Amino acid sequence: MKYFVLLSMVLFATYCTPVQQHSFEDGIWIDLTYSYSDETLYWPTSDTWQFDTVFVGQTDGGFYYEAFKFSTAEHGGTHLDAPIHFSEGKQTVDELTIDQLSGYAVVIDVSEPVSGNRDYQILPEDVQAWEIAHGSVPAGSILLFHTGMGAYWPDAQQYLGTTLRGAEGVANLSFPGIHPDLAQWLVDNRNIKAVGLDTPSLDYGKSTLYETHQILFANNIPGFENVANLELLPTLGAYIIALPMKIKDGSGAPLRIVANIPTE
Amino acid sequence: MKYFVLLSMVLFATYCTPVQQHSFEDGIWIDLTYSYSDETLYWPTSDTWQFDTVFVGQTDGGFYYEAFKFSTAEHGGTHLDAPIHFSEGKQTVDELTIDQLSGYAVVIDVSEPVSGNRDYQILPEDVQAWEIAHGSVPAGSILLFHTGMGAYWPDAQQYLGTTLRGAEGVANLSFPGIHPDLAQWLVDNRNIKAVGLDTPSLDYGKSTLYETHQILFANNIPGFENVANLELLPTLGAYIIALPMKIKDGSGAPLRIVANIPTE
Repeated sequence: MKYFVLLSMVLFATYCTPVQQHSFEDGIWIDLTYSYSDETLYWPTSDTWQFDTVFVGQTDGGFYYEAFKFSTAEHGGTHLDAPIHFSEGKQTVDELTIDQLSGYAVVIDVSEPVSGNRDYQILPEDVQAWEIAHGSVPAGSILLFHTGMGAYWPDAQQYLGTTLRGAEGVANLSFPGIHPDLAQWLVDNRNIKAVGLDTPSLDYGKSTLYETHQILFANNIPGFENVANLELLPTLGAYIIALPMKIKDGSGAPLRIVANIPTE
Repeated sequence: MKYFVLLSMVLFATYCTPVQQHSFEDGIWIDLTYSYSDETLYWPTSDTWQFDTVFVGQTDGGFYYEAFKFSTAEHGGTHLDAPIHFSEGKQTVDELTIDQLSGYAVVIDVSEPVSGNRDYQILPEDVQAWEIAHGSVPAGSILLFHTGMGAYWPDAQQYLGTTLRGAEGVANLSFPGIHPDLAQWLVDNRNIKAVGLDTPSLDYGKSTLYETHQILFANNIPGFENVANLELLPTLGAYIIALPMKIKDGSGAPLRIVANIPTE
C-alpha cells in the first residue's frame, strides 16, 4: 500500500504537474489592435492613412463586388518597429521570426505615475517593483507596459499631446515612454523577446535622440507601438502573437497583435 | 486499497487524459506568407506594390534612422478576402474575429489533378476522397488546398498563366481553383471557418462570375489567397493563425498567416 501511494504520487507529479502553458483552443482571444481608418494617429511628420475605392457595387456580370487600395507610412496606428528602424544592419520586418514575435506576456501597469505626469519615463525601479510582487521577468517574455494613454485614442490632443503637424507637432509631443536606463537595464539583466506599450513611441514624446529605440534595437529587440486594450490583460499568463504585415526590407509595418488568455 | 486504486484511476483519467490540442510553445512555427516586394504578384487589373523611402541614413542628431511608406491594392500577395468582397453587407476585414481566423487546419493535396490540368477545379469528390482516408472534415476547421502552384511564385507567367496586364491579362489567366459545386457542398455539409489555397483566387483563373467567392462569402466564410509553403504542412494537426492588417471597412487585406505544428 505504501509503495502504491508513493507510485501514485510520483505518477501524478510527473504527468499532472500544472503547466503555465495553455493550449491554442482553451483560451479567449483579445485583439490588441486599432483599425486603420481616417482616425488613425500618425507621427506629426508622417504620411497618414489613405483609403481609396477601386469599385463598390453591382458589376456588369450581375454580381456584387467591392475592392479598395490604400497607402500609409510604415509607422502609424498599431505597428511594429523593426530593429533596423534605428540600428543599421539589424533585422528588417521580414527577417523577424514568429518565435520572436510570440510568447507569454508580462504586463506592467505604470498608469499611476503616468496619471500624475504624462511625460513620465518608465524606470528600472518600476520593473523591479513588479518583480518583488511577481518574481523575475521570465526569459522569453514579451514585455508590455500599460500606461493608460490608450484611453485617449484616437484623440490626437490627448494621446499625442498635440494636433499640430510637421516639426511644430514633434516639438509639442507629450506622452510617456521607456527611460533609456530601463532599456539598458533590460538588455543587461533580462532576456525579453520584444517590448510594447500603449503610446506612439518606445521613447517618451519629448525625446530627441530616441535612445531607448537605439539601445533595444541594437540588441535586436523589436517594439510594438500604439498597442490597444492592454487594460484587458492579466499581468501574467496572456500569450501574445504579434504578426506584422510582411514587408521585405521594411523598417516597420502595420501590426496585428492579439492575446490569448486562459479561461480558467 | 481497492478504493485507493479506483480513486487514483479516476483522478488520473480526470486530470491526465491526453488532449489532441497542443500548447502554444511546444510546436514549431511555419510562415505561410510571401513578403511584399517588387516581385509580389497582383491581379492584372490591380495596382501593385509601391515602396518609397522616407529616410535612410545618419540623422543630424547623430543616430541612424530609416523609414518607408507604401501603397498597395488590398488584394495582392498573400492576402485575406473578407466576405464583403463579393457579398453585400457581409463582414468587412475589421469585423472578422480572431476565433474565425484561427483553428486547426485540414490540408488537402490536389497537386496530382492540377499537374495534368492547370485549369483544374477542385471538386466535392476531392474532399470526399480525403475524408475516406482521414474522416470527416472536423467542425471549425480551416480548409487549405495545396495545388502545387506555389512552386511557381513569383513567376507571373507560370503562376498566373500570363504576364499581361489589364483586361488582356485577365482574359489569359490560367490557374486552378475551387469549383462552385465544392463551395456549395461545403456550405451545405460541413462547418468550416475559412478556406485558403496557393493560387491567386478561390475561383479558377478562367472564372468570370466568381461563383465560389459568391457562395462562400454569402455564408461569411473568408478566403486566404496566395498562401505560401503549404507543402510543409501535415494534412492534420497544424494550428493556423491568420491575422490580416486591420483595415476598417476593408474588403481584403495583406495577411500574415502562420502555422504551428506539434513537434512530437
